[in-house]
Amino acid sequence: MIRFFEKDPYAPIQYSYEVSKVLYHKRSKFQDIMVFENPFFGKVLVLDGVVQITERDEFFYHEMLVHVVMNAHPDPRKVIVIGGGDGGTVREVLKHKSVEKVFFIEIDKDVIGVSKKFFPGVASGIGDKRVEIKCMDGAEFVRGRRSDIDAVIVDSTDIVGFAKSLFTRNFFRAINNCLTEDGMFVTLSESLHFHKDMVVEVQKTMKAAFPVVDLYTASLATYAGNWWSFSVGSKKLDPREIRRKDRIRTKYYSREIHGSAFLPKDMYSRLMSGRLGW
Amino acid sequence: MIRFFEKDPYAPIQYSYEVSKVLYHKRSKFQDIMVFENPFFGKVLVLDGVVQITERDEFFYHEMLVHVVMNAHPDPRKVIVIGGGDGGTVREVLKHKSVEKVFFIEIDKDVIGVSKKFFPGVASGIGDKRVEIKCMDGAEFVRGRRSDIDAVIVDSTDIVGFAKSLFTRNFFRAINNCLTEDGMFVTLSESLHFHKDMVVEVQKTMKAAFPVVDLYTASLATYAGNWWSFSVGSKKLDPREIRRKDRIRTKYYSREIHGSAFLPKDMYSRLMSGRLGW
Repeated sequence: MIRFFEKDPYAPIQYSYEVSKVLYHKRSKFQDIMVFENPFFGKVLVLDGVVQITERDEFFYHEMLVHVVMNAHPDPRKVIVIGGGDGGTVREVLKHKSVEKVFFIEIDKDVIGVSKKFFPGVASGIGDKRVEIKCMDGAEFVRGRRSDIDAVIVDSTDIVGFAKSLFTRNFFRAINNCLTEDGMFVTLSESLHFHKDMVVEVQKTMKAAFPVVDLYTASLATYAGNWWSFSVGSKKLDPREIRRKDRIRTKYYSREIHGSAFLPKDMYSRLMSGRLGW
Repeated sequence: MIRFFEKDPYAPIQYSYEVSKVLYHKRSKFQDIMVFENPFFGKVLVLDGVVQITERDEFFYHEMLVHVVMNAHPDPRKVIVIGGGDGGTVREVLKHKSVEKVFFIEIDKDVIGVSKKFFPGVASGIGDKRVEIKCMDGAEFVRGRRSDIDAVIVDSTDIVGFAKSLFTRNFFRAINNCLTEDGMFVTLSESLHFHKDMVVEVQKTMKAAFPVVDLYTASLATYAGNWWSFSVGSKKLDPREIRRKDRIRTKYYSREIHGSAFLPKDMYSRLMSGRLGW
């Protein structure tokens, strides 16, 4: 039996997967891209040795990344998605009927091509006429843009290598500048089990750019540490509150999950002040 | 570098850990027992090739296993703990001042000995005068016992091998018989990510014995699938409700976590009727 051993330098548990078949394996200009088939998860997309999505469970991550901010915003029309070349985030954004325009900024066009070919159910929204694809650095795209965006969603790889530019104070400030008054921003921020210090650092960096910053989590089987965190920033709106009445079709996300996903306020303040007991 | 590869036949992701040092490795009458040291998790207890607890994160599991039923019960005095030879569950039970008696039923006395030696912080409650240890099969201990117990907590290994007897209809009925009218029962029931069918089966089997059955979850890094489930049964009381006012010292569990840990009712009914989308 062939096994794939994940190469995540920061994960204290190494995950490995049975490989039924390698379907694709090439280096793009930016990273090593692989797709393999696994008996439980179906097709698995791997970038630089780290699992990004699986056919079986990608919706947990994509729904939780997208629908919290999209439902906390009263009327999201213009959205920027940075990263997420597989298209899963764009697919979820397009479920919201209010959306008129999605700027889809993916640095690596090969990821988009691979996803269209091997993950058609994930990439399904990429060809939608509301979507404008730009293959460029997300930090460059938002720089200098002014106040016309309702939501910015960062769906990057882990906070290492070229993805690091998406977690700086300057980047967060540029995003705040391109948001409307009701605007909302969300990004992944690693695992509360494995990378608590990194979560706190992202939160603190965001506080230098956004008046409101909060944190919610979801349990994801295929990301190291599993207790995965999402960091939200806004100019004034509380992301815990749901402001939209439209119901969208989801497998995991719901209004109840929206509420319970946020860290209890007491736990959040203990996390930020270094008083969590782990 | 030496690595430990977990041997969980039902886990579609295999976990492996760096081993700084093997501290103990022997077969008991019932199972293979190993303790090793890991740079991130500290000491790790392994039974039959599967990680049971780590020094770093055991409290997530023990707190979530114990405090939901102990706080949903109005006044738990007599408690049975089945399994959990490491003592972590007993330690958490004893935090409740109402407790007068704990029957601690662990089939394998060697696990208790190993825990006392290598995990003194976990085993700390085992010597308490309220605790009566019995090294025997838990199913045998509850059989025929009548209506004097406030809470029964099963802290077994995975639902394979000799632990299977703790997940039968007969066992659940025997537990129901030994509970008082306000009595509560809780057991682990595997991962919602990896073993959804097993979770449903445990729930259905419990419904044949308990009038009230419910399900809550926690994200645990060291158990395969991570989105770990706990199944609760009672004669009449809703386990979602907190009936106790005493505050106990915990690192993770809180009143807010108690509420948000339960599956939203809509998701629960979709799970039970096979309509969850994964």
